[in-house]
Amino acid sequence: MSLKFVERQQLKEKPNIKEVAFGTTFTDYMVSADYNKDDGWHDFKIIPYEPLSLDPSTAVLHYAQTVFEGLKAYKVDGETVLFRPEENFKRLNRSLERLSMPKIDENQALESLIELLKIEKDWVPNGKGEALYIRPVVFATSKSINVLPSSEYKFLIILSPVGGLFSQDGLGTTKIYTEDKYVRAVRGGVGEAKFGGNYASSMLAQEYANEKGYSQVLWLDGVEQQYLEEVGAMNIFFVKNGELYTPKLNGSILPGVTRKSIIEFARDRGYTVHEDRIHIDDFKKGLEDGSVTEVFGAGTAAVVAPVSHLNIHGEELKVGDGEVGPVAKEIYDTLTGIQTKRVEDKFNWVKEVK
Amino acid sequence: MSLKFVERQQLKEKPNIKEVAFGTTFTDYMVSADYNKDDGWHDFKIIPYEPLSLDPSTAVLHYAQTVFEGLKAYKVDGETVLFRPEENFKRLNRSLERLSMPKIDENQALESLIELLKIEKDWVPNGKGEALYIRPVVFATSKSINVLPSSEYKFLIILSPVGGLFSQDGLGTTKIYTEDKYVRAVRGGVGEAKFGGNYASSMLAQEYANEKGYSQVLWLDGVEQQYLEEVGAMNIFFVKNGELYTPKLNGSILPGVTRKSIIEFARDRGYTVHEDRIHIDDFKKGLEDGSVTEVFGAGTAAVVAPVSHLNIHGEELKVGDGEVGPVAKEIYDTLTGIQTKRVEDKFNWVKEVK
Repeated sequence: MSLKFVERQQLKEKPNIKEVAFGTTFTDYMVSADYNKDDGWHDFKIIPYEPLSLDPSTAVLHYAQTVFEGLKAYKVDGETVLFRPEENFKRLNRSLERLSMPKIDENQALESLIELLKIEKDWVPNGKGEALYIRPVVFATSKSINVLPSSEYKFLIILSPVGGLFSQDGLGTTKIYTEDKYVRAVRGGVGEAKFGGNYASSMLAQEYANEKGYSQVLWLDGVEQQYLEEVGAMNIFFVKNGELYTPKLNGSILPGVTRKSIIEFARDRGYTVHEDRIHIDDFKKGLEDGSVTEVFGAGTAAVVAPVSHLNIHGEELKVGDGEVGPVAKEIYDTLTGIQTKRVEDKFNWVKEVK
Repeated sequence: MSLKFVERQQLKEKPNIKEVAFGTTFTDYMVSADYNKDDGWHDFKIIPYEPLSLDPSTAVLHYAQTVFEGLKAYKVDGETVLFRPEENFKRLNRSLERLSMPKIDENQALESLIELLKIEKDWVPNGKGEALYIRPVVFATSKSINVLPSSEYKFLIILSPVGGLFSQDGLGTTKIYTEDKYVRAVRGGVGEAKFGGNYASSMLAQEYANEKGYSQVLWLDGVEQQYLEEVGAMNIFFVKNGELYTPKLNGSILPGVTRKSIIEFARDRGYTVHEDRIHIDDFKKGLEDGSVTEVFGAGTAAVVAPVSHLNIHGEELKVGDGEVGPVAKEIYDTLTGIQTKRVEDKFNWVKEVK
């Protein structure tokens, strides 16, 4: 691959990973590419991480045409590895399409990431639960406030080192508030795209949940406000009578890579996994009668986030004994084990950067 | 008002207004202010219109926290005037609140606009249908990709001269496609906010409508996909048996200033105006039996946009005789008349810049 490389004068001092707040520290370099109607995507390059010069009329600032991805690089035995990165670039293209934005060559995008990671290999931390968070993003750059799909776009990949999110035993628990007033997404809308606007529009409900003492929102569907969709920025799973359940993808749920991976390897391990339309009352009943023994979120950031308590229609319910359950623990250990090559990668999900 | 003013070295050459594409040319100066948690909104100033320096991690580029407004300044007898600008800044604050963004002092924002317009008075065009389009915008500027409401924001007001949108008789007609697959907004969502994400998420349906030969989309509600909401980026009105109808504000419809003004002065003129929940089948029946004689969009950009044809469930229906109807013409003439002080401003809607 012939990727233009612009070297920076001086490298940054690397921070103490234990002291870094998530998403606020970035590495020395980034991938950059541009799109216009004549040239398509062009000028892929690795350049110093530095401010962009954007006109006040830049389309993304007004009409929010922006989609992103999130994945992680891990350090294993001195080598940098990725987990199913091709899934993220496939989803990026699906998101781009939904937001009337131009698709990007998935291989070229992934190759540019790999070149970037080779240069930034010393930024990949190697402690337990630590990783280099990878943020591909595409946004509209036309200098026009006419309400039209932009005719110019920018693609960036930036990198941010992240420490372990959880306590030293690897997994903590979280409390969830079921939102029955605000709606995140609806069929026919943009809920299945990793669209920036889905995150902005979710923040108010998230703030209210925090004020009530809950760390995440459980979203219900936009039509009937009765069916489970997502939890915060994660997919949701639960264990009922020893079987796994997760809401079926319906156009308003984000198709998570962690979600997909859990379904695939849990089935391989002999679990029955149901992708269903799940009514909140059925779910609540299962919590009340004890048949639902575990609930957890699943996503790139936390991998698995066990839920200790759920507030449903104003009533707080404890999940099982309120501790991390055995299925969540097995899934977390297996997934992080595969990601860090401590568990056999029988699905060939781990990609080495070399 | 003590507003800091940074003078630019050289003024731009003013373009020929007849040749300017909407939203692509901007004046010499802009209003700028910043927000952080310690100082609140501060540093209101008028500075040269020039590129912003934004870190690649700037929150708005990833999570789309951005809301905006749109209004116009007109030149009347050599003076610059505004139409109900306080309504726009009120709505800006409602939008900010919904998107977990900090409210701004409405008076201070409006005063800063007035100072800007005094400086830019030679940019306000005076031809028929011409105006200076005003774009206030607030967006998230924290350098963080943590999914949280940003702790820093920027407020800008930029100005763009616009020519007459329509042919020389003042009003043209437009063809509308009723969207029954994609959804713009749903109750509990962000549809009533002037949120950039609502525009990004509408673009795909708009493109499909264009491909089918229609210039705008008629949006139906997100729950049942049966009730009229908006047309493109405008509110919708129709005339049935001589009375005016428009969908009732329900949380997913943008509360337009033009919509509100039409309702107010039409009632004052003796029209019966209904704000109702309107089923698409009832509306279609009215078009078929001839009781619906006019349909038009209403918004800041076009003021009034008469509809000649509507596609509903795949069937194209002509509205009346397909020409601009008398009610749309009366409303257009009255509203533009008030805006340009050719019609008595009995509601005191016009604000002079001085």
